[in-house]
Amino acid sequence: MNERAVYEQIRLLGPVSRPQLAAATGLSKPTISLALADLERVGLVKAIGRRTGGAGRSARLYGIRPETGWVIGLDVGREWIRAALADLSGEIAVREDVRSVGADGSTGPAALIDRLGRIVDDLAKAADGAVTSIVLGTPGVHDVENRRLRLAPNLPGWDEPGVTARLARRLPAPCTIENDIDLAALGERGYGLGEGVAHFAFVSIGTGIGMGIVLNGELHRGARGAAGEIAWLPFGEADPRETRSHGMLESVASGPGVVAAAKRLGMTGPITAKRVFDAARAGDPVAAEAVAHEAGHVARALASVVALLDPDLIVLGGGIGGHGADVLLGAVRDRLEAMTPLGAPRVEVSALGDDAVVLGALATGLETARDLVFARAVTEA
Amino acid sequence: MNERAVYEQIRLLGPVSRPQLAAATGLSKPTISLALADLERVGLVKAIGRRTGGAGRSARLYGIRPETGWVIGLDVGREWIRAALADLSGEIAVREDVRSVGADGSTGPAALIDRLGRIVDDLAKAADGAVTSIVLGTPGVHDVENRRLRLAPNLPGWDEPGVTARLARRLPAPCTIENDIDLAALGERGYGLGEGVAHFAFVSIGTGIGMGIVLNGELHRGARGAAGEIAWLPFGEADPRETRSHGMLESVASGPGVVAAAKRLGMTGPITAKRVFDAARAGDPVAAEAVAHEAGHVARALASVVALLDPDLIVLGGGIGGHGADVLLGAVRDRLEAMTPLGAPRVEVSALGDDAVVLGALATGLETARDLVFARAVTEA
Repeated sequence: MNERAVYEQIRLLGPVSRPQLAAATGLSKPTISLALADLERVGLVKAIGRRTGGAGRSARLYGIRPETGWVIGLDVGREWIRAALADLSGEIAVREDVRSVGADGSTGPAALIDRLGRIVDDLAKAADGAVTSIVLGTPGVHDVENRRLRLAPNLPGWDEPGVTARLARRLPAPCTIENDIDLAALGERGYGLGEGVAHFAFVSIGTGIGMGIVLNGELHRGARGAAGEIAWLPFGEADPRETRSHGMLESVASGPGVVAAAKRLGMTGPITAKRVFDAARAGDPVAAEAVAHEAGHVARALASVVALLDPDLIVLGGGIGGHGADVLLGAVRDRLEAMTPLGAPRVEVSALGDDAVVLGALATGLETARDLVFARAVTEA
Repeated sequence: MNERAVYEQIRLLGPVSRPQLAAATGLSKPTISLALADLERVGLVKAIGRRTGGAGRSARLYGIRPETGWVIGLDVGREWIRAALADLSGEIAVREDVRSVGADGSTGPAALIDRLGRIVDDLAKAADGAVTSIVLGTPGVHDVENRRLRLAPNLPGWDEPGVTARLARRLPAPCTIENDIDLAALGERGYGLGEGVAHFAFVSIGTGIGMGIVLNGELHRGARGAAGEIAWLPFGEADPRETRSHGMLESVASGPGVVAAAKRLGMTGPITAKRVFDAARAGDPVAAEAVAHEAGHVARALASVVALLDPDLIVLGGGIGGHGADVLLGAVRDRLEAMTPLGAPRVEVSALGDDAVVLGALATGLETARDLVFARAVTEA
């Protein structure tokens, strides 16, 4: 498959000339010319001008046709659905965020599938309906064998049997379902702090708690796709009924856990995790104490990650881990240092903000889409 | 390097004929004949008879010369030094266990290096002095960059600067130092329950606590070689001074932790972890309660492993995890099941007993030795 190798180099280097392609692939110039002719004929590659200046004949330059494939990345959370459409070059054409709960307050899997379907239809218009692949990030574990989601307590009903099949029927292209935080780790590997790092963990703390693990540059999913489900780290003293559905760590260290701690400490009025962090920023001592509690929980979770995996880097994200880092990170680092006998690894806040999952979904979808588009062109030729 | 490929197949399949080697390597029969001639000339391979029976000419059979290389595997613990000598085929020629502390009560790194040197000298005699490589398993983390051991509190002084250099000078062949439980995991992968399992963890509980992690069939060492140092899992309520040197989990769940728990519960007399387990076996209710405590600590550690890694299998070993399994394993499995939302993975006791580390050391040393012997033969030829 010389064509595939040439195509990949054009995508990575383009606009690119024949001599450059020969050097990059190690293939002979006649082989390159043959592959280029094939790729032009099936419409995957086009000539896009000539290199000007310099001595001798000007070289013709080639690039891929980005519009031959389109990918949609989705991030489904309890608060927001985030979505993006990208062409085959990875360029984002449309970016859209909508509330997970409709204006009519409708919740549950049917309403969620409906909202996802509408967003995808909307994005697909910008791709002239030619969507090649969809990747959807969701909390929980996708149990592929039994075709259902597991451990997604923050999206009620989302783990019922038949949900993934109904979702697949509603969408206009093949959809891969992945754990959202695993995708965030891949986003971080592709576009963020994880680029070029051998071993790192992306830890998300917000409504829920989860982790994506990259070891030797590859995502570690585990035997059942449940690696990194640190919500179930056996910490804390929470109500066992709660911890059966949300996990012991999540019960104390997620947004609701922060709210519960602040109430216990005497904070009054309508409390949200955001309000606790805002009050701590403003110098409220009770809120500061709740944040200090939270720092302790997070540090213990990270100490477990360090003891087991010894990563080069831990990236924090999510509503609390990302947006609350200004008041949280210092205390987390200090406590972690005291719990790790060889010293703590680097702990940083994701620079991708709320986009990590969507970017990881696009990166994953683009790999699939390029293979699909290539295979389709070869079959049709 | 056709010779290397042919050599490897002879080692794996031998006694083996030319046609079998051609089939196994995909090389042509003339190429096989050439490689065999070279390998015989440099003394790595020998003809060892003919296949009898069947029609046609009987085929000459070849095997490696096992005596062209010798490997020593060592397992240094607080109580015992375990050692073995194997030839290049992996056959164990000598197996020897001695107490870590001398009859004169001498301890400390100098005494330990002396004892290790004597054992190796003793084993080397059986190899006519021709030891190719030595692999030593020890508690702690080998900080290769700074040439010293870290986190080995159960071998006092063993982490002093200069110890690894002095050990290297005392030994008659190149010595690789590895974490003992990492080697046990490799022993388990090569000869035990981990054979052919994608993701598994070997968890050792005894004087100390540690874990070796195999993911996708490969050992995961971590950024600083400290992956699996679960002694530092942040559990328990032990004395912080203790936990700085031994780790929070180890302080409560190791042998000394079991003894402390039994004392707290009212057990009297000279207590060892073994006595606690023996008394529990005999029906002593106080000892049974101490063992139940221990099961809780172990289950929480394993729940952390499951939450982070989602392995197919967890193998238990060590003085408590292995020998105490008859009274411990049932309770550990029950508690783990209650803490893991997708159910617990298989938890089994190592069938290698006290040999896991030595077997892993030999397996690791054999890979090195085969490369060395081959490179040496090629250079000398």
